[in-house]
Amino acid sequence: MSNRYFDDLKVGERFKSDPLEVTEKQIVEFAHDFDPQSFHLEPARAEQTIFKGLIASGWHTAAITMRLFMQTVNFTEGAIGLGVDELRWPNPVRPGDTLRVETEIVDLRRSRSKPDYGIIRLRNVTTNQRSEIVQTMFANAMVPCRAGFTG
Amino acid sequence: MSNRYFDDLKVGERFKSDPLEVTEKQIVEFAHDFDPQSFHLEPARAEQTIFKGLIASGWHTAAITMRLFMQTVNFTEGAIGLGVDELRWPNPVRPGDTLRVETEIVDLRRSRSKPDYGIIRLRNVTTNQRSEIVQTMFANAMVPCRAGFTG
Repeated sequence: MSNRYFDDLKVGERFKSDPLEVTEKQIVEFAHDFDPQSFHLEPARAEQTIFKGLIASGWHTAAITMRLFMQTVNFTEGAIGLGVDELRWPNPVRPGDTLRVETEIVDLRRSRSKPDYGIIRLRNVTTNQRSEIVQTMFANAMVPCRAGFTG
Repeated sequence: MSNRYFDDLKVGERFKSDPLEVTEKQIVEFAHDFDPQSFHLEPARAEQTIFKGLIASGWHTAAITMRLFMQTVNFTEGAIGLGVDELRWPNPVRPGDTLRVETEIVDLRRSRSKPDYGIIRLRNVTTNQRSEIVQTMFANAMVPCRAGFTG
């Protein structure tokens, strides 16, 4: 479905993203711009840390999750992020890992302040190629309804 | 202080970052990689949305906040992010905005599983040049203690 509005979603619905490989170059570039710590930036020094090798910044994993989520659910007029709860990184992301995101629609309600929008509460779980969980989160997003939808 | 460990922090302590300007080019590049929605990516189409102009992805604001926080508190051996709660974006970030982060140390405890580390709970508040709040969050991070620190 490439043309999705608030009114197309159902509570309990699940979406699975395509896979995306994360390269060492991407991990280092993101870290350079936003999280310049040796275990994200310098492969040789990262070997000496408790991670025993380079790992992605958690904020990089979060940004990749956003990309995979948006590609998959594909709202016609976008989704406005309102907030995120319980963002956790139980396992690190390493160079060459392939990530996927599974999205579950947890709750749906109409916006009180903006009647042409609905508020979605969703859970995103990001896994690697070994099905290990690398990130979990709940998010609230505001999404347009189709013209004339009365809910 | 450029040489900070867990044992240097006190509950209630506050840190203020230097300012950092966010350019239109950075907003568009981040959106292209991670959040390709028209209000983050296309200035002309963004004018037609409820934001009336280009705004940064919330994940971009979060990544910039990480950078300013790390530069300011400056842990000698880094900080390992464990999780984030109540991440909110009450106002958008626009091209040319200058962001600062204020960090408050909310809680400090020794790690039970890794005795050479402490767990910090902190609150980061990110503001723009008009002192409007653009992001708030709580985070838990694991930070090394000095050798021999017994707490």
